[in-house]
Order: sequence, then C-alpha cells, then structure tokens
Amino acid sequence: MIFSACPAPILDHKTVVLGHGSGGKLTHQLIQKMIVPAFQNPILEAQHDGAILPMNGGRIAFSTDSYIVHPIFFPGGNIGDLAVNGTVNDLAMCGAKPQYLSASLIIEEGLPMDDLWQVLSSMRAAAERAGVTLVTGDTKVVDRGKGDKLFINTSGIGVVRADVNIDPTLAAPGDLILLSGSIASHGMAIMSVREGLEFETPIESDSAPLNSLVERMLEGGSIHVLRDPTRGGVASALNEIAEQSRVGIRIDESRIPIRADVQGACEILGLDPLYVANEGKLLAFVPPDQAERVLAAMRAHPQGTESTIIGEVVTDHPQIVVMRTRIGGNRIVDMLSGEQLPRIC
Amino acid sequence: MIFSACPAPILDHKTVVLGHGSGGKLTHQLIQKMIVPAFQNPILEAQHDGAILPMNGGRIAFSTDSYIVHPIFFPGGNIGDLAVNGTVNDLAMCGAKPQYLSASLIIEEGLPMDDLWQVLSSMRAAAERAGVTLVTGDTKVVDRGKGDKLFINTSGIGVVRADVNIDPTLAAPGDLILLSGSIASHGMAIMSVREGLEFETPIESDSAPLNSLVERMLEGGSIHVLRDPTRGGVASALNEIAEQSRVGIRIDESRIPIRADVQGACEILGLDPLYVANEGKLLAFVPPDQAERVLAAMRAHPQGTESTIIGEVVTDHPQIVVMRTRIGGNRIVDMLSGEQLPRIC
Repeated sequence: MIFSACPAPILDHKTVVLGHGSGGKLTHQLIQKMIVPAFQNPILEAQHDGAILPMNGGRIAFSTDSYIVHPIFFPGGNIGDLAVNGTVNDLAMCGAKPQYLSASLIIEEGLPMDDLWQVLSSMRAAAERAGVTLVTGDTKVVDRGKGDKLFINTSGIGVVRADVNIDPTLAAPGDLILLSGSIASHGMAIMSVREGLEFETPIESDSAPLNSLVERMLEGGSIHVLRDPTRGGVASALNEIAEQSRVGIRIDESRIPIRADVQGACEILGLDPLYVANEGKLLAFVPPDQAERVLAAMRAHPQGTESTIIGEVVTDHPQIVVMRTRIGGNRIVDMLSGEQLPRIC
Repeated sequence: MIFSACPAPILDHKTVVLGHGSGGKLTHQLIQKMIVPAFQNPILEAQHDGAILPMNGGRIAFSTDSYIVHPIFFPGGNIGDLAVNGTVNDLAMCGAKPQYLSASLIIEEGLPMDDLWQVLSSMRAAAERAGVTLVTGDTKVVDRGKGDKLFINTSGIGVVRADVNIDPTLAAPGDLILLSGSIASHGMAIMSVREGLEFETPIESDSAPLNSLVERMLEGGSIHVLRDPTRGGVASALNEIAEQSRVGIRIDESRIPIRADVQGACEILGLDPLYVANEGKLLAFVPPDQAERVLAAMRAHPQGTESTIIGEVVTDHPQIVVMRTRIGGNRIVDMLSGEQLPRIC
C-alpha cells in the first residue's frame, strides 16, 4: 500500500505513444521503468517469453499476449490464428509443451458476425494444428470508435520437462546462433496490405506454430536460449538476449535468409528487415558441440528446412550485437528505437 | 479444416451489438451459437467461470477476463484492481486457490503515464491483498481513437484441492442459496459516475477478492456451486445455474440485501438491481445440512458479514427463476435481454 503512494517513474514521454508498443527501446523503457518496478518479483524480472512456475510438484510455463494487428485479415492468416500461434510459440520458447489456451475477445460494436466466425474458425484450426485445447474464454464488446474491430488475448499453459532449462540469461560465449528460416515475412505481409503494395504473388505471413519444431530440437541436443523474433524482429530479440546474458553477439548478414520479394518490399518501404516481425521463426542459442545435431533436427522438420547458423556468442563487446555486412564491414545492430511498424501483431 | 468451410451460424444480429457484451441473453446466444461450436470441447462446454484441468498429477483452474470498464477510475477502485480481483474471483468460484496471474495491457496512445502508474500500483496492491503473484505480461499500444484509454486482460491459475468439486451443473433440489452481501454496488458506482449522479457520499464499487472467503467456506462445509454475479447481476447468474443444473430456483426479494443509496440510484436510473453487476459478492448453493455451518463461516469473514440465505433450489419449474416479491406476489426473473449497462467491467 505504501507503494501506491510512490510517485510515477520519470520516462522520456509524459503520455504513452505508439512507439511504446513497437517492441523496441521505448517498449523496453516502459517495461523496465513502469511494469517491472510496479510488480517486482523474480519470476517477472526473468523477462522470459513466459513464466516458469512450480505446480503440483512439476513445472509449468504460463504466457499471455494481446493481439491488436491491423488489418485483422491479411495474406497468410488473420488475427485468430496469429493469436493462437503466438502464445503457442511463447510457451515453446520456454521449452514447454503447450497444452491449454484461453481466448478473450474485445469486439468493436459493428463487427460482422461472418468476420467473427471466420476468425473463430481459424483459431480452432490453429489450435488443432498445434495440438492445444482452447479451454476458457471471455467476450467483451466496446462501443463503435472505442476499439478497432477485434482485439484478442490468448494466454496459455504448457508443461516443462524436468531436463529442460531454457532461459534468456543462459547464452554463453561460444554458443552458435541458429535461425529457423527466412525473416521479415509477417511484418511485410501486413505492411504490404496497409501500404497497398502489389506483387505478382502477395507476400504471406509466416504465422505458424513452432512447438513441434522445438520438440524435435530438444531431442537433437541441449539448447541454452530460444526466442521467436516477433515485434522488433531479429535485431531486438538478439539485443534482449545479449543484454540479459551479458554477452556479445556477432552475426553475419550474408547468412540471414530473406525471400527476394520480402527484401524488395522492405526496400520500397525503407525498412530494415532485421527489425521486421516474424511469427513462425525462432532463434536458438546452442553450445557448439550440440549445434550440428540441433541444426540437423531443425532441417528435418517442415518448419525448419531453411535453418542456418547466423552467428555466435562472443566475450568481446558485451551486450552489443555486431553484424558483419554483405560488403564486409562491421555494423552495430542496435535495438529498434521509436516506432517502426505499429500494430503488427 | 473442413470446419472452416462451415457457414457461420445464424444469429438474430448480422453484426455484433453492445448487448452481446452485457452478460445477458445476447451474450449467451453469442457464446452458445458461435464460441462453443467453434471450439467444441467438453472443458469449454462446462461453461464454468474457469476451466478445471489435469496438470502434473493434480488439478488446476485456469481463467481469463478482459476488462474494458469505462471510466477506468471510479469510486472504490479502478480498472487495475478490478482486473486482479475479477480473475482471482473467477478462480475462487471454481473452488481453486488462486496463485499466479498474467496481465496484458492494450493502451490507447495518449494515456498519461501517471494514470498508467496509478493503475499498475493498484494491480500490485490488489495482487498482494489476494495473495497472488503477477508473473507474466504483455503491453500493446493502439492509435488514438482505436481504443479507449486502457483495456486489461488478466488470466490466472490456481490449484484445486482434491476434495473440492464445485460446478455450475451441481445445484440440487433442496440446496439453499447463500449470498455474501448487499448487491449492485459495483454497477451503480460506475453508472453514478457516468450519469453524473451526486450523493452525499459517492457509491463505491464492492470490488474485492473473494478467495479467502471461499477458503473459509470450504472449511465450513461442502458446496455445490459458487458464482460471483458480475455482468448481468444476480438474476443472470441464477438463470445460468438453473439452466446448467436443470433445476428451478426460488428466491425471496425481501431477503436480498441492498444499500439504501444503491437502491435509490437504481430507482433514479430505472434499473433493476437484480441485473446490476457486483464485483465482490458471491452466490453459493449449499446442501441444506451444510448451510448453517457455511453461513456461519461466511459471517465470520470480513467479506461476508452480511451473508444471508436468499432462496432455494426446487424441482418445480426447471430452468426458471421465480422471485417472491416484497408485496407477496411471484415474478419470473428472466435473463437480462439486450443491453442494460455496457462496459461495466
């Protein structure tokens, strides 16, 4: 109660701006200065994609995400399957086997019932694909102009095997950094629709569940860190891990796969694909003696055929991500500052 | 996947209207015709306040709720403590001991940081009071005019003791119906602010955690059904239970406690207090031989000093709630139809 009397922490902004939702520096500042201090506990401070909790003698992972993507329908998916895949993936990134999901809808008055049905159907199909069950839910309606068609929160629970220990603080010098496929497809699918870019074939979101890929990887070898580079892209994910593990990271631009059409769309819109969201890709930090087997397990899985080693963890430049560029120079890859792609997920 | 091709179910409305969020008939129709068929599984069909799930050899309860209350600050609380108490209570209504909560914020661009801090501080204080830990979260920002200051989703996990079996289908003829205190305070606190009603002392929301009250009640005796009458009020809660248990319910108007100022505000606004939301009260269906001990346990708890028996379960008129009025007549208490109080929680 004494805490309630504390003055608000001082941030760079006096009101919330869109950039606070971008997944970059401002989001980080908001979480570090407002959310974590407000709730202060070791589990939250771990800042994993989900929380790992003791439960009935075992361990479970628990994760939550609200989806506000605009538009709600886009090439390759809609807000419904995105919401299911996103929480399934957050649980998988904790090394958990996702089991149960909740779904909570905030509907803007006027949403056509047919649109709602299509979203719900996609959620069901995505849940079936990922092998999870939607067990509880909630429905709220807000007046026209006080929402934007549909927001969805999904929360999820998964079981963590006793022998698994995956955590963003565990990246260690020497670890190799594996990426499960080409980057930036989700963000560019959304941006292409919003900006009215026309391609011969529309860029499709990579929205997909990663839990069965992770299961195979865990059979392949031990893993230190897993992260799905969503909001803020690969660059923000790597910066977060470098910071939390207090290590340096080196990556090689030429090894990062990107589809030609996605690259083209990024160039047209002046966006750096390293900062663009993915919804069906993962980064894995793996000890060097395990990397070959984990990589083989990834490539043998339909979700990971394009998997590749993009870099390594180093003792130099702790908490800094450095990229060797295609033309041979070195560039610091900072965390996204401000707002690049609002409402991408 | 075949399911996705199914046509949308036909509802009375072609688009979502505010009444679909009221907790009454339209909400019911939306859930029964759209949500449950879309996700179809026995756990969801149970339509408990939360889902009871097997986990690591024991049972857990899992619940979710999104809060869209307008205004976000009101006498007796704000959207933050409401969001914590609401999910704590949903878990308690499953007979679970709430342990862990997630918090997911959808912030409208422009929200003052001081307001955000006040809400977060209230969430923390409410979590401490209820003895739960906020372990994971998410923050999203929507553009101005695409949200309304702040929406909060909380999801929660609790442990269900092996000897507890509370379920909305278990109301049995002869059960006595216990109510933990005076009704309609939360809804009227919100409506008084919105309508600018002035009282000597403002009506305060009853927002409070009910988990420790439930713990005491379970020590007192066995309980068939617990329900916190939130959206749609006592009338909707009783109708839901009558329907799910396929029993009749009789209540006595003169036994339902209501504060004079709340009653007055209801009369001014033409609202029936039976349909107005509560956020710190519960209904318990208790076998007659247990009722005295459970009632004593309730009255001995600070949250239940005004507890009283308001009615009983009967074999007559299955699925119908009948109220003996103050003037001695009988009246059918139907489920709320349409929209009475939008955005109350």
